[in-house]
Amino acid sequence: MVVVMAPEATQADIDAVVELVQAAGGEAFVSRGVSRTIIGLVGDVEQFGALNLRSYSGVSDVVRISVPYKLVSREHHPNRSVIHVGGVPIGPGLVTVIAGPCTVETPEQTLTSARMAQAAGASMLRGGAFKPRTSPYAFQGLGEAGLRILADVRAETGLPVVTEVIDPASVDLVSSYADMLQVGTRSMQNFTLLQAVGSASKPVLLKRGMNATIEEWLMAAEYIAQRGNLDIVLCERGIRTFETATRNTLDISAVPVVQRLSHLPVIIDPSHSGGRRDLVLPLTRAAIAVGADGIIVDVHPQPAAAMCDGDQALTGDDIREMATVVRTLPRLLGRELTPAPVPAGAR
Amino acid sequence: MVVVMAPEATQADIDAVVELVQAAGGEAFVSRGVSRTIIGLVGDVEQFGALNLRSYSGVSDVVRISVPYKLVSREHHPNRSVIHVGGVPIGPGLVTVIAGPCTVETPEQTLTSARMAQAAGASMLRGGAFKPRTSPYAFQGLGEAGLRILADVRAETGLPVVTEVIDPASVDLVSSYADMLQVGTRSMQNFTLLQAVGSASKPVLLKRGMNATIEEWLMAAEYIAQRGNLDIVLCERGIRTFETATRNTLDISAVPVVQRLSHLPVIIDPSHSGGRRDLVLPLTRAAIAVGADGIIVDVHPQPAAAMCDGDQALTGDDIREMATVVRTLPRLLGRELTPAPVPAGAR
Amino acid sequence: MVVVMAPEATQADIDAVVELVQAAGGEAFVSRGVSRTIIGLVGDVEQFGALNLRSYSGVSDVVRISVPYKLVSREHHPNRSVIHVGGVPIGPGLVTVIAGPCTVETPEQTLTSARMAQAAGASMLRGGAFKPRTSPYAFQGLGEAGLRILADVRAETGLPVVTEVIDPASVDLVSSYADMLQVGTRSMQNFTLLQAVGSASKPVLLKRGMNATIEEWLMAAEYIAQRGNLDIVLCERGIRTFETATRNTLDISAVPVVQRLSHLPVIIDPSHSGGRRDLVLPLTRAAIAVGADGIIVDVHPQPAAAMCDGDQALTGDDIREMATVVRTLPRLLGRELTPAPVPAGAR
Amino acid sequence: MVVVMAPEATQADIDAVVELVQAAGGEAFVSRGVSRTIIGLVGDVEQFGALNLRSYSGVSDVVRISVPYKLVSREHHPNRSVIHVGGVPIGPGLVTVIAGPCTVETPEQTLTSARMAQAAGASMLRGGAFKPRTSPYAFQGLGEAGLRILADVRAETGLPVVTEVIDPASVDLVSSYADMLQVGTRSMQNFTLLQAVGSASKPVLLKRGMNATIEEWLMAAEYIAQRGNLDIVLCERGIRTFETATRNTLDISAVPVVQRLSHLPVIIDPSHSGGRRDLVLPLTRAAIAVGADGIIVDVHPQPAAAMCDGDQALTGDDIREMATVVRTLPRLLGRELTPAPVPAGAR
Repeated sequence: MVVVMAPEATQADIDAVVELVQAAGGEAFVSRGVSRTIIGLVGDVEQFGALNLRSYSGVSDVVRISVPYKLVSREHHPNRSVIHVGGVPIGPGLVTVIAGPCTVETPEQTLTSARMAQAAGASMLRGGAFKPRTSPYAFQGLGEAGLRILADVRAETGLPVVTEVIDPASVDLVSSYADMLQVGTRSMQNFTLLQAVGSASKPVLLKRGMNATIEEWLMAAEYIAQRGNLDIVLCERGIRTFETATRNTLDISAVPVVQRLSHLPVIIDPSHSGGRRDLVLPLTRAAIAVGADGIIVDVHPQPAAAMCDGDQALTGDDIREMATVVRTLPRLLGRELTPAPVPAGAR
Repeated sequence: MVVVMAPEATQADIDAVVELVQAAGGEAFVSRGVSRTIIGLVGDVEQFGALNLRSYSGVSDVVRISVPYKLVSREHHPNRSVIHVGGVPIGPGLVTVIAGPCTVETPEQTLTSARMAQAAGASMLRGGAFKPRTSPYAFQGLGEAGLRILADVRAETGLPVVTEVIDPASVDLVSSYADMLQVGTRSMQNFTLLQAVGSASKPVLLKRGMNATIEEWLMAAEYIAQRGNLDIVLCERGIRTFETATRNTLDISAVPVVQRLSHLPVIIDPSHSGGRRDLVLPLTRAAIAVGADGIIVDVHPQPAAAMCDGDQALTGDDIREMATVVRTLPRLLGRELTPAPVPAGAR
Repeated sequence: MVVVMAPEATQADIDAVVELVQAAGGEAFVSRGVSRTIIGLVGDVEQFGALNLRSYSGVSDVVRISVPYKLVSREHHPNRSVIHVGGVPIGPGLVTVIAGPCTVETPEQTLTSARMAQAAGASMLRGGAFKPRTSPYAFQGLGEAGLRILADVRAETGLPVVTEVIDPASVDLVSSYADMLQVGTRSMQNFTLLQAVGSASKPVLLKRGMNATIEEWLMAAEYIAQRGNLDIVLCERGIRTFETATRNTLDISAVPVVQRLSHLPVIIDPSHSGGRRDLVLPLTRAAIAVGADGIIVDVHPQPAAAMCDGDQALTGDDIREMATVVRTLPRLLGRELTPAPVPAGAR
Repeated sequence: MVVVMAPEATQADIDAVVELVQAAGGEAFVSRGVSRTIIGLVGDVEQFGALNLRSYSGVSDVVRISVPYKLVSREHHPNRSVIHVGGVPIGPGLVTVIAGPCTVETPEQTLTSARMAQAAGASMLRGGAFKPRTSPYAFQGLGEAGLRILADVRAETGLPVVTEVIDPASVDLVSSYADMLQVGTRSMQNFTLLQAVGSASKPVLLKRGMNATIEEWLMAAEYIAQRGNLDIVLCERGIRTFETATRNTLDISAVPVVQRLSHLPVIIDPSHSGGRRDLVLPLTRAAIAVGADGIIVDVHPQPAAAMCDGDQALTGDDIREMATVVRTLPRLLGRELTPAPVPAGAR
């Protein structure tokens, strides 16, 4: 941490900061410049934060130097992690495909979507039972009935299930059905929810808040990790910008940036970032090429009849093209497509 | 709602859309242009939304025309509302000042802050007991002990209390102490929480999400209203932009825009938007001048010792200057400062 | 300037940075922290910038401490400046109103607009002859014919004229007619143009780029100042954000922020920021209240017939209300409305 | 174009709009909804734009339906174009690599960089002689001396040269040396410059403004095309967002979006978008995979000594890895790396 003094700061102002830091158990190194003096602080940064140094006379700015997250950083865990979800690995050397309907509507639609997901190269099934919707008048999901459908389809196909949890009170319920708990973009700073999934015994898929910086996203992961759950996969899904041609702007650079800062796997959602079916395949290729550890995509047997986000769901020919991409591109880049697990009945 | 057909759309494509709309009970008016055809839809917009018209052959775009919120709009309730909180009114013709510490720390600090708030012209007390913090290592608030302190200070000063609720499970607890429930910027799209406060019997202060459009903000209010609670006050507190000189960018234009769209009162938080003490007074003057129905500001007896956001809390001379501003400026603009309630003991 | 070393930096890495800085004539102070070392640099920052310190082994980040502009900063010129335009002052203690049509269309329309401007309290006339338009198919302005009209209207009314210059090649031409040269939002980083107006003998109205940080805006002013022209007035006119309810988001906080950093006057454009007539008066009140040194507004005798931005031009009753605001509000805040100059013929 | 009437609009308001449109030679189709009426306009949209319909009584909104650009759109030119620069093609089926130093410093540095560019797979040379710099105190480029160095290096290596032009007055000068004129991100809405390069006889590389929507970018291309120059290559180089981990946010989705809207080739600049050397290779892979028609990258023999943007220039091992990527990845995706031209002396 560095304290920048104002040009008009007095010697007494400088001494006051030094004494304050030393009283808090830290060390302070003073560098006098031509027009300004800076003071480098050594010690416990969290404790310095509580000093409100910016409030003191003569202090112009306080600049933090080290990253504020620990458990999820590569400084504390240099090797990148592999997370296992119902036996399916996500992490370095692999490209893991998660696919399924945006929303669980019926057993048939979910099973058909799961078969499409498998055809597209998926080793995990996605599907929403509890839906966070911008409008109170929009369909909010089937709830527990949806979770049961997902569990049935898992039994039939062998695909582990990831589904969203939107409320701390339902974490136990969702955990009893799902293999992985999704925290959605609008919940990324729902700290009570982060703590609840941090105490759950299931891996977590943490979507980036559409307004969150990479640092805030990693701090949200730190919330989960701090409660003892380090089985976290990060998911970039687009950020909010001034551009309106796409629903959000996929921040593809976030993948290599995060992989350098954190040991956690990071995947991309090419469906929700663009919100347009015609962008899903190009963005999937880009996601694999940039080094993402996987993708999560929407599929639907009849997009025009979907109860949510039908505009972006893959179907028909898209599925075949997706299968080709995920079966060839990873290998060319030195990675492998994660194979789908064998269903229990077929072993 | 208007469906815009692609230049290459066929007559069959157009007919298909018309039939679809008619089958859903609506009417469709076709306008053929030189290069494109547009189809105007008349009927129940929510139902048309479920048709996924964008998925149909030849459809290029679907443009919504009417606003998606109802209960909070002026189309359904033309006169602007006055909301009462513990007897204190917020609404047209008034400027209501809410002030207090960002965080409740001790009984003494809270009482002193409340006295400062009164001196500054406040008729309501703010103070956080449950704090949503970006870092899991930061102070998270005193919880129920903080609520008890707030209630004690209310008894002493007569000021109704607004405090944040961050979790649906604690809405009842917070309601049992507070006069108004604050939904914070990071919770604006926590739909479970919105529904919970919508079912509570206390007025709600709904802060704008720092990434939320005005329409999304009003949709969040609609969530609360839909559960039967129309005692909602909106609070603009800055949005996230590329500018880094201030913590967020106060969207002051939002006040007249919202007042035109919705009947709900809207106030401004000049403390959290800028994050800098030196901006609080200029932004307070601007807030009153632009027509805001009130302001909510941080005060603290010793900002340098504050456990949260000390950089922005008013103290000492600022309080006197604030008092002058809120006692003179509203009257010059044809409004009145809401007077502080008389404490029970003094009546 | 502070160099932050990576956790894995070696002693040799640290020594290399120190030697480099000393070789460039600077001093380096090393502060060793628990996990990182930081090096404070003292000396000529521009020279350090050329060292590319970020490229060296073990260097994690380089943080600049002092501001990169000099001539326009308050560090070098503590008192706020008053700029005179054709005898009309803009600066502390005053509220100067500039008004006129977005675009000069005819002599009659311009003269009528100027009379409306005077009625609204203006002491300067605005009007565009060279228009930067997003579409090549839109009206691009009357050019020199428009400048002649402005000069004629000035002779008739006594109001000094500010008009936009969009090309270095026409700076001399525009200077021969105008009293003040406007650099528009899309030209704020047209460095050749900035240098050209910096060499001109007329004051400059520098609008903020809709995508520019406050620092970049002040750097653009520095370009002008560096060529010897310090008669610069800054104009905040809204920045681009995700919000679409208004054309741009007026960054009202920029006024007190800039007034603290720079000695130059700063005014607000409430017409172009919102792009809506109904926002002009509320934003004008807010501009005066926040402390802006003036405003610049669009007026038009027949907005529905305007060739540019008719949606936002004031007319009729708006003019009377504007006059009331600018004649009463400044005084209540301890400032004065700048009086209109007396036309030559009337002296 | 669609006119949306306000709920309170009267029949007279509706009739007035219809008459206005008909008087302008258009047709108007009225669709009456439950709460609102909409009017679809058929005819010349530019002419309707001049009507200022939004200013009329009862009009709530005016929504444009068709795209405002013509010459650069696929509606008017369905097949994607191939642009030739000094004999080197850019367009569908190809991946063209442009590389070189950010800034021309010396003949040796430029020649060495060009050899590195060739080794990296480039068929064109980039290099700046006129530099738009945020600070007036930063190095502004060698000017014509730099252009001569570029021409000499072209003679030696056979690589066509692209270099930036920042001023309409120097378009002829730059055209006399360069094979392609670059319009930089800060000049994208310098309309005088766009018109000047539109009249030049050299192809244009049009970088996206960091604050520009895709529509504004295509409108800027339309400015160039309207003057008769359709040899335009678009370059996505990152947009400004709230994220600070990268210099800008690469909007990779813009590539497929633009390729659908316009027939012009679109390439990606992975160096300037991220501003970090470690992101250049991942973003290059992503650019090729998403379908970009090429890339433009910075290389430098000694990044630490570079006069501009040394932090992001490739060197040493990076060059070899880049060569591997661009020689293998395009083929796997059904495209070809554009081969470097043979220098005149070697034919």
